[in-house]
Amino acid sequence: MSEFDLIRDYFCHVGAARRDVALGVGDDCALLRVPEGFDLAVSIDTLTAGVHFLPDGDPESIGHKVLAVGLSDLAAMGAEPAWATLALTLPTADRGWIGAFCLGFARLAKRHGVQLVGGDTTRGALSVTVQVHGLVPVGTGVQRRGARPGDRIWVTGTVGDAGLALRRLGAGEPVSPFLRERLDRPLPRVTAGLSLRGLASAMIDVSDGLAADLGHILEASCVGAEVELPALPLSPEAAGYLDNRGDWTLPLASGDDYELCFTVPPDRCGAVDRLAERSGCRLSAIGVITEKPGLRCVQADGSDWGPACTGYDHFADGG
Amino acid sequence: MSEFDLIRDYFCHVGAARRDVALGVGDDCALLRVPEGFDLAVSIDTLTAGVHFLPDGDPESIGHKVLAVGLSDLAAMGAEPAWATLALTLPTADRGWIGAFCLGFARLAKRHGVQLVGGDTTRGALSVTVQVHGLVPVGTGVQRRGARPGDRIWVTGTVGDAGLALRRLGAGEPVSPFLRERLDRPLPRVTAGLSLRGLASAMIDVSDGLAADLGHILEASCVGAEVELPALPLSPEAAGYLDNRGDWTLPLASGDDYELCFTVPPDRCGAVDRLAERSGCRLSAIGVITEKPGLRCVQADGSDWGPACTGYDHFADGG
Repeated sequence: MSEFDLIRDYFCHVGAARRDVALGVGDDCALLRVPEGFDLAVSIDTLTAGVHFLPDGDPESIGHKVLAVGLSDLAAMGAEPAWATLALTLPTADRGWIGAFCLGFARLAKRHGVQLVGGDTTRGALSVTVQVHGLVPVGTGVQRRGARPGDRIWVTGTVGDAGLALRRLGAGEPVSPFLRERLDRPLPRVTAGLSLRGLASAMIDVSDGLAADLGHILEASCVGAEVELPALPLSPEAAGYLDNRGDWTLPLASGDDYELCFTVPPDRCGAVDRLAERSGCRLSAIGVITEKPGLRCVQADGSDWGPACTGYDHFADGG
Repeated sequence: MSEFDLIRDYFCHVGAARRDVALGVGDDCALLRVPEGFDLAVSIDTLTAGVHFLPDGDPESIGHKVLAVGLSDLAAMGAEPAWATLALTLPTADRGWIGAFCLGFARLAKRHGVQLVGGDTTRGALSVTVQVHGLVPVGTGVQRRGARPGDRIWVTGTVGDAGLALRRLGAGEPVSPFLRERLDRPLPRVTAGLSLRGLASAMIDVSDGLAADLGHILEASCVGAEVELPALPLSPEAAGYLDNRGDWTLPLASGDDYELCFTVPPDRCGAVDRLAERSGCRLSAIGVITEKPGLRCVQADGSDWGPACTGYDHFADGG
């Protein structure tokens, strides 16, 4: 079975069928139409076996997750998903694996109106790279650098679930279906991201850990922040873990949650509250942007919580 | 040294500085402006150690080649290069390697006005994925499916040089600087590709071997072809090898040349001749498109040359 058969069989009709695709999979390039008045938002991400997922991990989940990671970047820019390209490196041309991978990828793609428009398949150590392409009205993309002192800091959903799943897996403990789903099949906050365009002054997705990713906003915006630890939104399981251990690194420093962290000027926070009610997406205010640089984490009694919080580092941590 | 330092140090200012980049490296997405009246052409390619290059290969050449492979796809569509994204998977964060890689990548990027706008760096087996983005006036992209019976078949430059370099390396024989350059630092035919817009009825780049890549044009266009073997353009070294061995698989079935193969209706062939004179790029007519399907290779005495010619297959051949 040749590389070309592989590509033709599986990748020709993945995801939505879009009218703005002038030429899809199967030529030297795809040809895409960006509508007038829109910026093209692009992001590329790689997941590798042994670092981002287990070598014998479920291929359907891997297909889902690699696209979810990209869509989460589009969400953090407030961009509407449109197209994806896929570079797949596999040790062998295993039809079962590829079929399951495509299923996970295609389901999430269809859900968000994304069409797979191009790809490459090569032989090597298992690794998946996806580039996502989205559209955002010119000048309205939500960047990291717009946070100002006094802006409130918000986060979608709950944080620390994927990290708790990893800790349990690492300790050989059982992992609940809820935590497993949060780790393996994160749902990118695409709708929330679109709704926050015009409301958020800065936004990022939580892929490396809340403290590290908020840190990127602080650095890009030349500001600091105070986060109220008791305000961090936790699932019941993560809350139970924290009650037992009191270890705030779980919600602050574990990655892979793919929630959005964003800042909002005080006069727009009412609109964010109403958005939360209307959308059913949990949106929690967790702190405030300060002029003083650095990230201060404040406990319930008003005292600072000490340990430095840095996110997941692919080279330092191993994986 | 963290992943973020890596990215910041090396990837912020690679290649040209373009005014149509609203937001470059360093946020969740890059924001790009596609001008009105243009299609966006995209192509993604992966090179992996052990398959496409030696694990201890020169990083500067790898940086050059991975971008060249993408630019060659844009050339084959007649698209003008604009932006690139880069996903780099490395076993260790080796500054020397990354610096040399960036140098090779950046030199070729600048030469073609390409800006690196986004990237991802992960830990794992050495592998490099690049997506290129180009611009082509709406509806003028040169696809594979436009060849018609009677169209002449052309190829740029010479074919078989990279293949000869690989054969010599495989046999432990010395490789001339010319062949080495052809293998390690192919020059994508960007200018030729742009000039052929409006002249070529179909076009593809020769990455898997002339027979296989011409085969993609034939299949997409539902036609066949006759190629005159004596008309294949060869470098002096490849011609010498062929004189000794009479093995036409060298120019027909070896990949990695990154020349363009294209078809031209008879009434436009004069314009292609004039283009060759004007541009200094060797353009050779090597055969004709036929109604009868299949690829017929004709020798100097008019007889058919037998062996089936298929291109490089990543899964079947090993590498």
